[in-house]
Amino acid sequence: MKMIDIINKKRMGMELSTEEINFFIQNYTNGSIPDYQVSALLMAIYFQKMNMRETSDLTMAMVNSGDVLDLSNIEGIKVDKHSTGGVGDTTSLVLTPMVASLGIPVAKMSGRGLGHTGGTIDKLESFDGFSVEISEEQFINNVNKDKIAIMGQTADLAPADKKLYALRDVTGTVQNISLISSSIMSKKIASGADAIVLDVKVGDGAFMKTFENAKELATAMVSIGKNVGRNTVAVISDMDQPLGLAVGNALEVKEAIDTLKGNGPDDLLELCLTLGSNMVVLAKKAETVEEARKMLLKVIEDGSALRKLKEFIAAQGGNPEQVENPELLPKAKYVVEVKSEVEGYVSKIDSEHIGLIAMELGAGRATKEDKIDLAVGIVLNKKRSDKVSKGETLAYIHANDESKIEKAGKDIIVSYHILNENRKAVPLIYGVVK
Amino acid sequence: MKMIDIINKKRMGMELSTEEINFFIQNYTNGSIPDYQVSALLMAIYFQKMNMRETSDLTMAMVNSGDVLDLSNIEGIKVDKHSTGGVGDTTSLVLTPMVASLGIPVAKMSGRGLGHTGGTIDKLESFDGFSVEISEEQFINNVNKDKIAIMGQTADLAPADKKLYALRDVTGTVQNISLISSSIMSKKIASGADAIVLDVKVGDGAFMKTFENAKELATAMVSIGKNVGRNTVAVISDMDQPLGLAVGNALEVKEAIDTLKGNGPDDLLELCLTLGSNMVVLAKKAETVEEARKMLLKVIEDGSALRKLKEFIAAQGGNPEQVENPELLPKAKYVVEVKSEVEGYVSKIDSEHIGLIAMELGAGRATKEDKIDLAVGIVLNKKRSDKVSKGETLAYIHANDESKIEKAGKDIIVSYHILNENRKAVPLIYGVVK
Repeated sequence: MKMIDIINKKRMGMELSTEEINFFIQNYTNGSIPDYQVSALLMAIYFQKMNMRETSDLTMAMVNSGDVLDLSNIEGIKVDKHSTGGVGDTTSLVLTPMVASLGIPVAKMSGRGLGHTGGTIDKLESFDGFSVEISEEQFINNVNKDKIAIMGQTADLAPADKKLYALRDVTGTVQNISLISSSIMSKKIASGADAIVLDVKVGDGAFMKTFENAKELATAMVSIGKNVGRNTVAVISDMDQPLGLAVGNALEVKEAIDTLKGNGPDDLLELCLTLGSNMVVLAKKAETVEEARKMLLKVIEDGSALRKLKEFIAAQGGNPEQVENPELLPKAKYVVEVKSEVEGYVSKIDSEHIGLIAMELGAGRATKEDKIDLAVGIVLNKKRSDKVSKGETLAYIHANDESKIEKAGKDIIVSYHILNENRKAVPLIYGVVK
Repeated sequence: MKMIDIINKKRMGMELSTEEINFFIQNYTNGSIPDYQVSALLMAIYFQKMNMRETSDLTMAMVNSGDVLDLSNIEGIKVDKHSTGGVGDTTSLVLTPMVASLGIPVAKMSGRGLGHTGGTIDKLESFDGFSVEISEEQFINNVNKDKIAIMGQTADLAPADKKLYALRDVTGTVQNISLISSSIMSKKIASGADAIVLDVKVGDGAFMKTFENAKELATAMVSIGKNVGRNTVAVISDMDQPLGLAVGNALEVKEAIDTLKGNGPDDLLELCLTLGSNMVVLAKKAETVEEARKMLLKVIEDGSALRKLKEFIAAQGGNPEQVENPELLPKAKYVVEVKSEVEGYVSKIDSEHIGLIAMELGAGRATKEDKIDLAVGIVLNKKRSDKVSKGETLAYIHANDESKIEKAGKDIIVSYHILNENRKAVPLIYGVVK
């Protein structure tokens, strides 16, 4: 088998066989196929597309390019959740204790990564003493005992995807549904998920800008999941404004705790219930999403989800008192109001822009070497459809570096689109693809 | 300017600017842009195409990526001729003395290359003592004095084309008219040509398999030539059988001499007259191709073309007696007849196959390290439309290695397509694009 023949076949619009896809991924991972042949193939795939069979094969080839987590010693159906990435997305912190408190195993391996705020691990490190440096054995024991544990990524999961992603990024071949969907799904499957709930964000602040594109991606990922024996559901949700109010690490942890106490923002709770009820159904703990939703509301009302969070934080060395009293979490030196210069109705909040402002305040990493300031970020006071008077507070800046406040304030004002009349509301949930 | 933006622009079907094309070629040549980005761009060009302006810019960017031969000290209009590659193509050896004898300067820089037979230099080395190791000064003096000289390629002509061609070959991006035409034209222009006559071959034995494809390539190259101030004419000619009768180095030299003496194969003479008359017109030595054709026939009849060849061979150290008496050229130990096993009419001779058989006999190089045997090759005895009886000679194998003769004979028989009735003749010249 020769790579040039595979390139030519795809260039001419023909379907690649399972063997050809495996050959390409194996030999690219081990370095025998050079980048320049792979980028030519990727561009041919961009133009000629891959069908669902090819996309599923590509996914599994990438899964098999490295370690695959063996979670077979954990009882129950392991349901993982993945978001295509939004701003102020605190769902994981809320969802995991909720579903764990229903007896569904949550076994998360997580990285740090780059972005507007830190990853889940960074956020959890807002709790004094919390650590993800636990052994695989302890990880599995914790999940069996408490139904929830998180560990830092030690295994070499889907190395082909890492290599391909880096190449796509510099060769203009990111934007292809098969390549995007197989990339996401390969990582989830290699992480040991039996079933997957996807949160596909749509809007100006998301990777997918239109509902059509988001639906196409959601449909592709659900098909892959089904083709490879991992039941998958995708929720398409809005990212034309940040989710919830908090954007920042400790700020989002506090918001998650508020939500588990029944005092969180409506949109965050609603999305968690939608994603969560699908997780509960996939884990076979409920027959219908309606039934699952009631179960999830109950674990908030009776305090068991909050207790689960405390148990989880304590089990990994963190201070559970900070769950009870979030005022003990890292706090910024300065909290400054950003006031509206006009009056009207909020029609849109530029999520990506808000994310970048939070990153500039220190909440996220632009490069791997950057250190995160857990305390800083932004808390929105007005969201879409809210009426705003001149001089009213739009948002609060939480900062430790006084010199950054003025610019952040100006940038936040620009991020708010305020119109004279209230436009028709954008839905939070566009739909669910099963 | 960033390469990723250039890739994305072309991927989305937009026209690249002159600056973008220059940026890409300059930085690819000097190594700052990696192969993997270039192969992605080439594949995007394959799908989105380049227009004539972009193609002309690409050509000149490749010309300017290295040395450009300065032939300004040679008097007259330097007309170069290029063939897209066929089997048994002896036109250069016949044409160059013909046009030189009309006072048109022929200043050829030539390489050895790979292929069924050697390049022009290899063939000329059939003359004892002939050498292309002459200085640039002597080269220019010879052309001014005798109107004809050839030197080995010393300058670094169009290095971007060399690099791109090698990459295209392994990334499935050879087959694009803009990339093919700019590659050919950049080398000719860098070699100092003022005007160019192209011989675009069409047929099973050629790079272009159909007339439509050949015409597209011819039109593209003529347009580039005109766009960049090098008047260009393209002749589209048949390659559904080898040109002439001889395939091999000394064998083709002998055939060229026969043709200059008025005893060559009709098809070879006819193609030389068509290509040559266009060269004469481009060199402004005749007003019309009809007038030029008469001039060329005359230099054969009066022996001046043959004398020019002798003069040229002698000027570069070769033995001119071998022109007078081609029996003195290298000769193979064995000359074996290949006889027809059936009777009928020759409908086609698989040129590519005949070329490969000649190469296996030792006439060409498969790798750069291979040594050429100047004496060996094939001489056809029957060509398309000829009637063949059972047992009649189809061709002669000229071999030095007895063990290779049997296989060559069998392979030649397979290359001849013999039918019961004589099919409508394929034209030798399909058309001329000006």
